[in-house]
Amino acid sequence: MSSAYEIAKSARVAGNILKTLSNESRSAILYKIHDSLAASKETIKSANEKDLVAAETSGLSSALLKRLNLFQGDKFDTMLQGIKDVADLQDPVGQVKLARQLDDDMMLYQVTAPVGVLLVIFESRPEVIANITALCIKSGNAGILKGGKESVNTFREMAQVINDTIANNVNETGVPVGAVQLIETRQDVSDLLDQDELIDLVVPRGSNALVRNIKRNTKIPVLGHADGICSIYVDEFADLEKAKRISVDAKTNYPAGCNAMETLLINPKLNEWEHILTNMIANGVTLHVTPEVKDAYTGKVDNLIDEIKSHIVDVDESEDFDKEFLSLDCAVKFVKDTQSAIEHINEHSSRHTDSIITENQANADKFLKGIDSAGVYWNASTRFADGFRYGFGTEVGISTSKIHARGPVGLDGLVTYQYQIRGNGNIAADYLGAGGNRAFVHKDLDPTKIHL
Amino acid sequence: MSSAYEIAKSARVAGNILKTLSNESRSAILYKIHDSLAASKETIKSANEKDLVAAETSGLSSALLKRLNLFQGDKFDTMLQGIKDVADLQDPVGQVKLARQLDDDMMLYQVTAPVGVLLVIFESRPEVIANITALCIKSGNAGILKGGKESVNTFREMAQVINDTIANNVNETGVPVGAVQLIETRQDVSDLLDQDELIDLVVPRGSNALVRNIKRNTKIPVLGHADGICSIYVDEFADLEKAKRISVDAKTNYPAGCNAMETLLINPKLNEWEHILTNMIANGVTLHVTPEVKDAYTGKVDNLIDEIKSHIVDVDESEDFDKEFLSLDCAVKFVKDTQSAIEHINEHSSRHTDSIITENQANADKFLKGIDSAGVYWNASTRFADGFRYGFGTEVGISTSKIHARGPVGLDGLVTYQYQIRGNGNIAADYLGAGGNRAFVHKDLDPTKIHL
Repeated sequence: MSSAYEIAKSARVAGNILKTLSNESRSAILYKIHDSLAASKETIKSANEKDLVAAETSGLSSALLKRLNLFQGDKFDTMLQGIKDVADLQDPVGQVKLARQLDDDMMLYQVTAPVGVLLVIFESRPEVIANITALCIKSGNAGILKGGKESVNTFREMAQVINDTIANNVNETGVPVGAVQLIETRQDVSDLLDQDELIDLVVPRGSNALVRNIKRNTKIPVLGHADGICSIYVDEFADLEKAKRISVDAKTNYPAGCNAMETLLINPKLNEWEHILTNMIANGVTLHVTPEVKDAYTGKVDNLIDEIKSHIVDVDESEDFDKEFLSLDCAVKFVKDTQSAIEHINEHSSRHTDSIITENQANADKFLKGIDSAGVYWNASTRFADGFRYGFGTEVGISTSKIHARGPVGLDGLVTYQYQIRGNGNIAADYLGAGGNRAFVHKDLDPTKIHL
Repeated sequence: MSSAYEIAKSARVAGNILKTLSNESRSAILYKIHDSLAASKETIKSANEKDLVAAETSGLSSALLKRLNLFQGDKFDTMLQGIKDVADLQDPVGQVKLARQLDDDMMLYQVTAPVGVLLVIFESRPEVIANITALCIKSGNAGILKGGKESVNTFREMAQVINDTIANNVNETGVPVGAVQLIETRQDVSDLLDQDELIDLVVPRGSNALVRNIKRNTKIPVLGHADGICSIYVDEFADLEKAKRISVDAKTNYPAGCNAMETLLINPKLNEWEHILTNMIANGVTLHVTPEVKDAYTGKVDNLIDEIKSHIVDVDESEDFDKEFLSLDCAVKFVKDTQSAIEHINEHSSRHTDSIITENQANADKFLKGIDSAGVYWNASTRFADGFRYGFGTEVGISTSKIHARGPVGLDGLVTYQYQIRGNGNIAADYLGAGGNRAFVHKDLDPTKIHL
């Protein structure tokens, strides 16, 4: 028996208990965890300072140091508030999604239920511990959490506080020890990725390299995205001003975001399309263009100043259309019509989010139907692909998988469903198809009116 | 480039086209396939007879021969009718599941969409070809179909008819050649199972060994069940008559079904529980009992006749509680209360369907909340776990996975969803959280009233 097996097995047992607890109990422990973390602010701060000193010594970049610093600005207080926000959300468990009368004395219900055991892997940001703990417990799932090694002291201190709080309140709230387990070593993760009989879902929150590596090394379903290769197609019938605004927003509002545009497809039949490129360059973007685009652009724009020229480079067609630049770079190509745009995107995109800019309803419909991505937009920036903007209350992650959960995922990405039958001694042999003569009623009731 | 890659790639391309077609076009080709298969009845029959002769020569069992015979009784006509039934179902694609106003001029919709490319693997029953073809096309998915080698002649003949029909009507219906590809060799399957970038879902329809083997050999999500280890817990507060009826139905109505009971858990505090066992034995069941059950039963029943004795054997605790007997055998054990029953089931069941027999609401609630299976029943036979009985119109399979689709899966197990945003040039930078001052409206509309 490996230690990974034992961790996963005890998580499964804890999950089976968590699943039976009321929303009140699950929310109550979150309030208590909030209070304990608040009361332990100073010890957590000391631990975090240890991590920061070690990180500085080892030469971590200032961007990563900023992530690691739990007391930067109001980060700690925001983290605490986040626990209460999750506690106050509507119960994601036990919601009736379908209610169907099978017979006079037999009902079928489809009811939301926790997925079971989640393995959540994240990098250096220590506030994620509190966030994930809250999401797991609120959704009735047991969580196995693995943080980045840079935050090990902060992580240990917070883990201690969280586990003590759970243990001290087990009689009152029923939330079992083992509901949240925090693990440290890299070896543990690779062993845990083998426990596909006991772990139901892996949620990696971190770099593309992390996600890709996890996807390669497990049979457990993974909720996440390795790449965000989002495209915008500017149609022949685009409104030029909308195209200019959206292309700049999608590329420059937050270039490191997975919902930033990486590829711009232009229909050259659009009048004055060159202004879209000039406007992007004016906003600091470097365009990686095909020879056709380069020729056409330089042909249209007189007296190209050097500053503009330096922002136009040759695209590497063998890789730039499959690349997440994560910077102020953008691949640009001509396409002859909406169908060609769809084909390019379905071939190259990472099925995250893609947008068409057009005033033509037929082309928009064609695009919205034809693109095989989690988000398909019309006249809007790809940057809207985000749980907060969709109004999901909290965001578990953004998924580019095609089943279970797609796009921004709220708390309902951490639940699944079960079918309940409530009968009165009913047996199949009494019904048509299994030897009997009774027919099924199959009458649907309004599930929103049913509280089991 | 392997041939598996080419098959999967052309399926992906065909899927991208299928996705854009109207329900009318998808249903129209199904009617045409229906007509062509009906018109080719005699050539299909000859091919099927070739398979039957070969199978008989190779000594296939009579049960398998029966499965292979497409013209047994009204099987062929039922198959044809099934194609029309699927064609007439409500469109599973393009249904609006959520409609939310993000701003005055920007709407968010969650809309059902095809999964993409399905790989369907089945054994000898040739009518499955027509059934799966219908389900794939109706749900807008491209299908790669692999049948059992025993039915190769029937399979080839039907594949020819289906592919010719699609090719001859491509201008009229738009359904592309490549929408349904039928492959023959075993090597193809194992290569296809590696194409996780191009194939979205594997649906194995066949023996447990087939499903287990596929699950072990692919990273593509699998919709299916390897085992159906269903349990029934007879509570201390059970109605004895209900317990007797349900236990016999769940075990004997169709012992080879995945929804048949394999384990019976009895609370010995129930008065006269021994009648449940005697009744099962009288219905031909052999009980695999623990020493406690054996002692208690023989102590309660005077003058045990030999015929009854021969139906009571010692359980092998190391494996019988994890076994799908698929026969008139049943493992039997005492549990002291509902909680113990839940723990046994969550440890041993295959998360298919489990039932409690009780008149006690609190114990029923505890069971319904505590069991981690796709189906959780109260006072009903596990045999109700079936798409027809649930009223799903058609059944794609029964899933014991915990995400995407659980339990009996209808056509909606073959669709996923996408988020559409329809805007008016909206950019993230205008809104709170991304640099601007506008707040999101986040007003939900009734999705059933929206037709995009």
